[in-house]
Amino acid sequence: MVESWSFLDTVESNFRPLVVIELAKGTKEETIEWFTKRIVDKKANGGAQLLVKPLVTENGVENIYLVGASHLRLLLGAETVGLVKECSDNSMRTFTYSSRKTFKHFADDNHNFLTMAECQYIIKHELENLRAKNEKMIPGYPQAKLYPGKSIVRRLLTSGILVQIFPLHDREELKKLSHSWYGRVKVGYQPLDDIRGYFGETIALYFGFLEYFTFALIPMAVIGIPYYMFAWEDYDKYVMFATFNLLWSTVILEVWKRICAILTYRWGTLLMKRQFEEPRPGFHGVLGINPVTGREEPVYSSIKRQLRIYLVSLPFVCLCLYFSLYVMMIYFDLEQWALDYHNENESTFSSLMLYVPSIIYAVVIEIMNRIYRYAAEFLTSWENHRLESSYQNHLILKVLVFNFLNCFASLFYIAFVLFDMKLLRQSLATLLITSQILNQFAESLLPYWLQKRYNRKMKKCISSKKTGMDLSLAEQVNMEKEMGTYLGTFDDYLELFLQFGYVSLFSCVYPLAAVFAVLNNITEIYSDALKMCRVYKRPFAEPTANIGVWQLAFETMSVISVVTNCILIGMSPEVDALFPDSKVDLVLTVALVEHLLLAIKFIMAFVIPDKPRDIQMKLAKLEFESLEALKQQVRAFQMQL
Amino acid sequence: MVESWSFLDTVESNFRPLVVIELAKGTKEETIEWFTKRIVDKKANGGAQLLVKPLVTENGVENIYLVGASHLRLLLGAETVGLVKECSDNSMRTFTYSSRKTFKHFADDNHNFLTMAECQYIIKHELENLRAKNEKMIPGYPQAKLYPGKSIVRRLLTSGILVQIFPLHDREELKKLSHSWYGRVKVGYQPLDDIRGYFGETIALYFGFLEYFTFALIPMAVIGIPYYMFAWEDYDKYVMFATFNLLWSTVILEVWKRICAILTYRWGTLLMKRQFEEPRPGFHGVLGINPVTGREEPVYSSIKRQLRIYLVSLPFVCLCLYFSLYVMMIYFDLEQWALDYHNENESTFSSLMLYVPSIIYAVVIEIMNRIYRYAAEFLTSWENHRLESSYQNHLILKVLVFNFLNCFASLFYIAFVLFDMKLLRQSLATLLITSQILNQFAESLLPYWLQKRYNRKMKKCISSKKTGMDLSLAEQVNMEKEMGTYLGTFDDYLELFLQFGYVSLFSCVYPLAAVFAVLNNITEIYSDALKMCRVYKRPFAEPTANIGVWQLAFETMSVISVVTNCILIGMSPEVDALFPDSKVDLVLTVALVEHLLLAIKFIMAFVIPDKPRDIQMKLAKLEFESLEALKQQVRAFQMQL
Repeated sequence: MVESWSFLDTVESNFRPLVVIELAKGTKEETIEWFTKRIVDKKANGGAQLLVKPLVTENGVENIYLVGASHLRLLLGAETVGLVKECSDNSMRTFTYSSRKTFKHFADDNHNFLTMAECQYIIKHELENLRAKNEKMIPGYPQAKLYPGKSIVRRLLTSGILVQIFPLHDREELKKLSHSWYGRVKVGYQPLDDIRGYFGETIALYFGFLEYFTFALIPMAVIGIPYYMFAWEDYDKYVMFATFNLLWSTVILEVWKRICAILTYRWGTLLMKRQFEEPRPGFHGVLGINPVTGREEPVYSSIKRQLRIYLVSLPFVCLCLYFSLYVMMIYFDLEQWALDYHNENESTFSSLMLYVPSIIYAVVIEIMNRIYRYAAEFLTSWENHRLESSYQNHLILKVLVFNFLNCFASLFYIAFVLFDMKLLRQSLATLLITSQILNQFAESLLPYWLQKRYNRKMKKCISSKKTGMDLSLAEQVNMEKEMGTYLGTFDDYLELFLQFGYVSLFSCVYPLAAVFAVLNNITEIYSDALKMCRVYKRPFAEPTANIGVWQLAFETMSVISVVTNCILIGMSPEVDALFPDSKVDLVLTVALVEHLLLAIKFIMAFVIPDKPRDIQMKLAKLEFESLEALKQQVRAFQMQL
Repeated sequence: MVESWSFLDTVESNFRPLVVIELAKGTKEETIEWFTKRIVDKKANGGAQLLVKPLVTENGVENIYLVGASHLRLLLGAETVGLVKECSDNSMRTFTYSSRKTFKHFADDNHNFLTMAECQYIIKHELENLRAKNEKMIPGYPQAKLYPGKSIVRRLLTSGILVQIFPLHDREELKKLSHSWYGRVKVGYQPLDDIRGYFGETIALYFGFLEYFTFALIPMAVIGIPYYMFAWEDYDKYVMFATFNLLWSTVILEVWKRICAILTYRWGTLLMKRQFEEPRPGFHGVLGINPVTGREEPVYSSIKRQLRIYLVSLPFVCLCLYFSLYVMMIYFDLEQWALDYHNENESTFSSLMLYVPSIIYAVVIEIMNRIYRYAAEFLTSWENHRLESSYQNHLILKVLVFNFLNCFASLFYIAFVLFDMKLLRQSLATLLITSQILNQFAESLLPYWLQKRYNRKMKKCISSKKTGMDLSLAEQVNMEKEMGTYLGTFDDYLELFLQFGYVSLFSCVYPLAAVFAVLNNITEIYSDALKMCRVYKRPFAEPTANIGVWQLAFETMSVISVVTNCILIGMSPEVDALFPDSKVDLVLTVALVEHLLLAIKFIMAFVIPDKPRDIQMKLAKLEFESLEALKQQVRAFQMQL
C-alpha cells in the first residue's frame, strides 16, 4: 500500500522500526492512504518526511504501521526539537545540523549518535506536528473536523480512528539495561544515564529522586533506631532528634535541586529551550482566533472555565473532604469499639484486634484515594483547560489536597485533639506499613503477574505457528500493544510525597518511620524498575529539567512538619516539666523555637545556591558565548556600513 | 587637537553634545591625544566611532571634552545595547537597524526616535566598552597598567586621570519636565513616561513606586484617622484594623509587581535581554584566566574574599549591632530620667521634656545609620567583589540588617520586654516624625540651598563676562560639573523601607503612622523631584525591569509585621478579657491566627499572578513569534537539502 518511500531514504534495508501506530479495526482505506501519505510526504508539502511500513502478520495486514526515519531526517528533527548534546570539548550545546561535526561521537555513519529514545521522541514530535492544510475533515470521516493548523494525529486520536501510538522496545538494550539495573543484587547506584538513554529524562529523574531520597533518609533511619530501641517513652531526647530531622529535611530538598541540576545538565535538558505549548488533545471549543498565535483554533471562554472550577469542582472537592472526615470519625468509633472489646476480654486475639481498625482504615484510605483520583481526572478534564501544564497543575492541586487530608487528618486529630501519643504511634505505624504493602502490591506485583500470564498465553499461541525472523517483530509488536500504558510519574511521586509526610510530620513520635521508608524505597526501586521494563509499554521520552511542582509540594510538607513537630515537642511531659510554674511560658517558648526554625529554614533555602558552582560557571560560559556571537554579528554588520 | 571627524559624520553642525568627559588638570598631552583618537576611531580599528570636541572657554582649553555621535551611530548602538522600542503595530520589539522601518515614529530624519537619555546611555555603554588592544599601559602613565580587553575608561577612572563622565542636561526639556512634574500644585499622577525619557527607567521606577506606595497607604491612613480620634485606648477594634493592614500590605506588594510589569513592558525593559556583567571598576587582583570568558583578566581568590567577609566584615557588623543596642540602653536611661524629672516637677516644660529623649535618640539613630553606611560601603568595597550585583547584594544586606535593628530594636524592646504600650506609641511617633523631618532636610533642602547659593555666585561671575551663544554651553558644563552626583536610588528605597516598617510593624498601636507616611511621601515626591532636576548632575539612564532586591525586603518586612501585630493584639487587655480562665488558650489562639494569616499571605502571593493577563499574552506572543521564526529557519534549511 505504502510503496512511495521518501527520497531521503535510499536503501530500504535501512528501515529500523521505531514507533508503532495502531489504527482502529475497519478504518476506511482512503483514510489510511491519506494519513500514510501525509507521514511520508516531503516537509515542503507539509508532510513529516518519515518512513512508514505496514506490519504484515500471517493474518495479513492488521492496521498496524511501523514508523521509522532516515538518519539524516532524525538529525534534522533533533535540531527542530532543540536537543542539547555534548560537544567534543565536553561542553553541552544545542544541536544544529550545520555544526554537527563539533559534537562528540558524531560521525555520518554513526547511527548511535542519537539514542533510540531520542529518535522516538523526535518521531513523536514530528507526528504530532503534522498539521492539516486545507482539509476540512479527515477523509472518510466527515464528523472528524479539521481546520488549518490542527494536529492531524490529535484529531485522529480524539475521533477514535487512531487507537494508540507507542515506541517499540529494543529487546537487546532492554535486556542489558534490566541486567545492570535490577538483574543482580548489588549495593550501588542505579545506571541513571542508561535509564535516561532508554526511557528519557522524566523517568530517569524520578528514579534519580527515588534513589537520592532513599539515601537521604538513611541518616534519619540510623539515628531513629537507637531512639526507638532505648528511649521508647523518653520524649526529651526527641527534641534533638526532631530538630535534626527538620533541618535535615530542608538540607536534602535544597541539595536535591543541585543534584538535579548536575543530572539535567549532563543530559542536556537544563539548557533545552521550552517549546511553545500547543493546546492539549482533549481541549475543545468553538473556532476562533487565538490572540497569541493569530491562528484559527478552538477557543473556550475563560469565564466558563472559572465557573466550572468554582461552582462545580470546588464544591465537589469540599464534599469529598467532608466525606473523608466522616469516614475518619467512623474509624474512631471502630477504634473505640476495639479498645472496649480489648478491655473486656483481654487476650492475644483482642490485642491483635486493636490493630484491625487501623488496617481497615488504611485500606479504605487507599481505595478512597484511588477513586478520588479518577474523579479528579474527570473533573479537571471537564474543566477544559487549554494547556497540558494548566491541566496538570489543577489536577495535582486537587489530588494533593485530598490525599493530604485523607491520609493525615486522623493523625492530626489523634495528636492535637485527643492528645493520645500512644494511639498516634500505633496508628501512624499501621497506616504507613499497610499503605506501603498495598502500594507495592497494586502498583507492580499485580500488573506484573497479570502481564506474565497474558504473555505466556500469547507466546504459546504465536510460537506454535512461528515461521521466520520477520514474525518475531510482529510477535513483539502484538505483545507490546496489549501491554498497559505507563501513565507518567504522577502516582510514583505522590506515593513518595505521602511517605515523606508520614516520616516528617510526626517524626518525633515514631522514629522508626524513616526505617520503614528506607526499606520500602529499596524494594520500590526494584519493583518500579521491573514495572518499567516488563509490565508497561515503553513510554515516550519526555525531556525535563526538574521535578517541577513536586519540589514545591515537598518543601511545603517540610514547612508543615516544622509546625507539627514543634507542637508535639511542646506537648511532651518532659518539656512540660521544664516549665512547672507557667504553661504560658511553655507555649511562648515553643512558638519562639518554631519561628526560629522556620527562619533558619528560609535562610538556608536562600543561602544554598540552587546550582553547583561549576554548573553555574558552565551556564555563564554558554550565555557569554551566545552574547559574544550576537555582538560579533552586530559588529560585522556595522563594519559593512 | 581632535580634528579628524569620524567618517560617519558628514556635517559638523550636526554635532550635539550629549556626554561630558572631564580629565584631571595637567593630564599629559599624549594621553589626551591617544584617548580621543580611540574614541573617534572606527569600530574596525577597535574605536568607539563617536564624535568628540574639546570645550573652549575664555580660559582656553580646560581638559573638558564633549562627546556626541552621529544619528546612524546611535541607531547601531541602540542595537548593540539591545534597546526595545515600540513597533508600528504597538508591539514591543528589540530594535535592530535592519528592521528600523517597522518601528513607530522612525524616520531617517527623525532624530528624536531615541530619547536623549537613551542616546546618553548608548554613548556611556560604548565608552565603557572601549577596550585596550595591545597597550600595556596608558600612554604617559606607566603605572596605569592595561591588558588586552581591559576597559580603558575604567582604568582611566581608577588611576585618577579621568575625573568624571556625566550626561548633559537638556535645559529646555528639563524645564518642560519640571513644570509638568512639580511646577504646579495639582492632584494627579506624575509624568512617569517623561521622567523615564529624561532620567531613565531606574529613577522613573523609583518615582512610580513612591507614588504607588503613597496611594496604597491612603486607605490605611483613612481608616486609621477615626481609630485614632474615637478609640484611643480601645484595642478591641484594632484587631480588625491590624488584620486589614496585614492583608492589605500583602495585596499592595503583589499588585505592585503587576504595575511594575505594565510600566516596564511599556518602557521596553521587561523584554530587554540581560547584558553580560563585566567586573566592577574597583575590582582588582592578579592577572589570570577567567574560566567563563577564557580571557585574561584580574582574578581574586574566592577563599580570600570569604575570609574577609567572615573574619572581618561579619564581626564588624556584629560589633556595630552591639553598639547600637548599647546606645538604645542609654536612651532608656534617659527616658527613665525624663520620667522621674516629670514626676518630681510636673509642669508644661517637664511634659515637653518627656519627648526630648526620643528626639535625641531619633537624631542619633539617623547619624549612626549614615556613619554605618559609609563603613559598610568601605568594607564591601574592600571585600573586592568581582561583579557589581554581588557588591550591591552584600552592601544591601549589611545596611538593611543594621538599619532594621537600629531603628526598630527600641520599639521591639518597649513592646515585648517592657510591655509599655503608651511609651511604644509615643516613641514610635517621635521616631517616625523626627526621622522624616531629618531626612527631608538632609536629603533635599540642604543640598538644594547649598547648590542655589553656589549657582548664584557662578552665574554672577560668568554673566559679567558673557559674550555669545557658545559660552552658554561652556557655562552650563562648568555649572553642571560642580553639581553633586546622584548616587542611585538606594537611600531613597531604604527610607521607604524603614517607613514601611514604622507603619506596618506596630500598626495596631499607632494608626496615625500611615497618615504621617502619606503626608511625608507627598512632600517627598516634590523634594525628590526637585533634587533630581535642580540639585544633582543628570544621572545616566539605567534600564531595569523591576525594583530588584527591594521587593524581597518589603515582603520580608510584611511577614515580620504579621508576627509583631499578632503578638500586640494578643497582649491587649480586651483580647485578654476574652480568655478569663486560661492564658494558654489565649496564646494558642494568637499563634493559630498568626499561622492562618501567614498561610493566607503565602497563598495570596502564590495566587495573584505577577504579570497582568494582557502582558502575559503579549510576552507569549513574542515568544511564539521567535520560536516560529526559528522553526522557519530550520525548515528553510531542511528544504534546501
